[in-house]
Amino acid sequence: MDRSPLAPASFPDLPPIAGVRIAVARAGYKTWDRADLTFAAFDEGTAVAGVTTKSRCPSPEVEWCRAALPLGQARALVVNAGNSNAFTGNRGRAAVEAITARVAGAVRCKPSDIFVASTGVIGVPLPIDKAEAGIDAVLQAPEASWEEAAATIMTTDTFAKGARASAMIGGTRVELVGIIKGSGMIAPDMATMLGFIFTDAAIAPGLLQAMLDSANRQSFSCITVDGDTSTSDTVLAFATGKAGNPRLESIDDAGADALQAALTELCLDLAQQVVRDGEGASKFIAITVEGAESDASAQRIGMSIANSPLVKTAIAGEDANWGRVVMAVGKAGEPAERDRLSIRFGGTQVASGGLAVEGYDEAPVAAHLKGKEIEIGVDLGLGDGRATVWTCDLTHGYISINADYRS
Amino acid sequence: MDRSPLAPASFPDLPPIAGVRIAVARAGYKTWDRADLTFAAFDEGTAVAGVTTKSRCPSPEVEWCRAALPLGQARALVVNAGNSNAFTGNRGRAAVEAITARVAGAVRCKPSDIFVASTGVIGVPLPIDKAEAGIDAVLQAPEASWEEAAATIMTTDTFAKGARASAMIGGTRVELVGIIKGSGMIAPDMATMLGFIFTDAAIAPGLLQAMLDSANRQSFSCITVDGDTSTSDTVLAFATGKAGNPRLESIDDAGADALQAALTELCLDLAQQVVRDGEGASKFIAITVEGAESDASAQRIGMSIANSPLVKTAIAGEDANWGRVVMAVGKAGEPAERDRLSIRFGGTQVASGGLAVEGYDEAPVAAHLKGKEIEIGVDLGLGDGRATVWTCDLTHGYISINADYRS
Repeated sequence: MDRSPLAPASFPDLPPIAGVRIAVARAGYKTWDRADLTFAAFDEGTAVAGVTTKSRCPSPEVEWCRAALPLGQARALVVNAGNSNAFTGNRGRAAVEAITARVAGAVRCKPSDIFVASTGVIGVPLPIDKAEAGIDAVLQAPEASWEEAAATIMTTDTFAKGARASAMIGGTRVELVGIIKGSGMIAPDMATMLGFIFTDAAIAPGLLQAMLDSANRQSFSCITVDGDTSTSDTVLAFATGKAGNPRLESIDDAGADALQAALTELCLDLAQQVVRDGEGASKFIAITVEGAESDASAQRIGMSIANSPLVKTAIAGEDANWGRVVMAVGKAGEPAERDRLSIRFGGTQVASGGLAVEGYDEAPVAAHLKGKEIEIGVDLGLGDGRATVWTCDLTHGYISINADYRS
Repeated sequence: MDRSPLAPASFPDLPPIAGVRIAVARAGYKTWDRADLTFAAFDEGTAVAGVTTKSRCPSPEVEWCRAALPLGQARALVVNAGNSNAFTGNRGRAAVEAITARVAGAVRCKPSDIFVASTGVIGVPLPIDKAEAGIDAVLQAPEASWEEAAATIMTTDTFAKGARASAMIGGTRVELVGIIKGSGMIAPDMATMLGFIFTDAAIAPGLLQAMLDSANRQSFSCITVDGDTSTSDTVLAFATGKAGNPRLESIDDAGADALQAALTELCLDLAQQVVRDGEGASKFIAITVEGAESDASAQRIGMSIANSPLVKTAIAGEDANWGRVVMAVGKAGEPAERDRLSIRFGGTQVASGGLAVEGYDEAPVAAHLKGKEIEIGVDLGLGDGRATVWTCDLTHGYISINADYRS
């Protein structure tokens, strides 16, 4: 698979995170000639928070994480790529238990301190023998780079995705690093994909969870590739506390705002990279909805536009078909008044007050649509509600990838 | 555009409906070398009922019909193809008023007895001069056939769509004929597309409306091509009363059940023809959901499957990827329990009790998926709720049509 035309030029330079050790190994879940098992070990005292898919049919990995998250402590993370282990009944649950028991034995901690996520085909139980051999190998493996880890969690992704941020807390600089995978089955309003965030900040688990929830609402919940929601999607944040900052207990503590801002920025960077690797994507689309009755209403309208196959194919065709944007606003089921609605592409107003802007200049619109970074603006003229969501276009590439991907 | 591979062999043989006269003309809304204006005149005493889009940004035609429908009487119908007149502000409203006034003057009735629908590009005001010239021409035109009318209302459709049904009411046979257009921007849970039904049955307008609502719930509301909802979608039913049956006033009257059954059958036939002409469709997909907590829940789960790009591309690729069906069940937001869920393709159970059926015979599944008529069955194992919905696959053809269609 060719690298997405929307990919960044190179993987970013990411700092080490004190208290985190990364390694990769080849469990051989698929015939891929590459590592497919990622391992992270955390020093004692590492706090954890997470958001998981809203699917009613989640994988046993998701159920495991949901049960362990309230305890707030993590010592290790295992990520399997190539097999999601979802919809595999007791055998899937047994695989998760075998993985967590084996790692807990090696690390000498409780199984509930071990977090696990898997991604790939649904319906094939994760082979326990391969997982166990992979874990034994990864425990002996040399330390890996962030780029190796980001590449090892990939499935249909065309580029490894990572990002960094930092914040000052009480005079101490803390670092945040994130890696993420995902390019299809990416959907709105929930924790999408597999994403892992590591920081050396000292923070209470409950506050880390609140910060991750907030960051998620402004990042992973605002992207969509195809409106489809995985059974396995998980974002986990690990905070080792090794930076030595005064431990944050409350959002009112000095420096908490800075960490929240850094975490949100990091999540947004990661989320946008997923969209930039959307299956078949040739254009990155930012949709800003203003003037809605509420922020939530603006987001639902934005997602209705972002998930419309007709809008997405029009952008693929570089066609300023704002009528399809009107259609998508109309079908969202949210308050809207046709005769107050205005729409712009790039910086050019194309429709206003319920009809086309007479004689608007088509040249800048056409030039904007030929680019790779597309902006659609909608103003409902009703209130102060505002949201931005991100998606990609819908091309022949999406069909080719998904009509051929072997189940 | 090639005729859909799912099209019926030929247009059906449809009977005349007493009290209805059809004609077509060329208004020249587009450069098409074909008729684009369809006209139907009804004898005095014709009852009318209708269902219209749930879009919050409807066309002025839809608003006109919504205002006129409660009066229950119709003398004429005008359908414009090539320009939807949606999102055109005062000029769009003026075009509808000009059309209805001109026809009312010719027919000598109230403007509110005239119904109008338009389909095509959004955002370009319908040119009033062309509409008026078209009306003048159609009023002089010879009577047209049902097939000519069905072809004249088409836009991106690849075949003309019509159907018939009949019922016995108090010893009198009544006939029903329907024509319909639509192949993209077809979405669930509302009156979709432009559909027109004509019957010689004598029936009170209120009862006709109740029957159309019921038929709509089991037909047009159960289909989807792309989950997108037009600003213009309208289904109208006209009943001339010329069959001479005892006029139906209540659903409890003798023969009302038979007419309801015939109307529902007709609507289902028309709705399925729209799916068979879904943009780029190569396979017709029937999705039956059973064992849900309610019929409504079953329908929402069915639509979640039917609107999933990943399910639709898997079917296009003839891939028995039932994991994507699990995904779509999970994302529907309806009650579901992974470990009670079972799935079949054609007659073959592929997953049951939350995991793959061990060693199921793949040969009949592969053979079924190579066909043009695909059946997906889902049993949730929770209750008695049941629904069937219909869609088509998602192919390169959809992308080609919609990335190129000129706005």
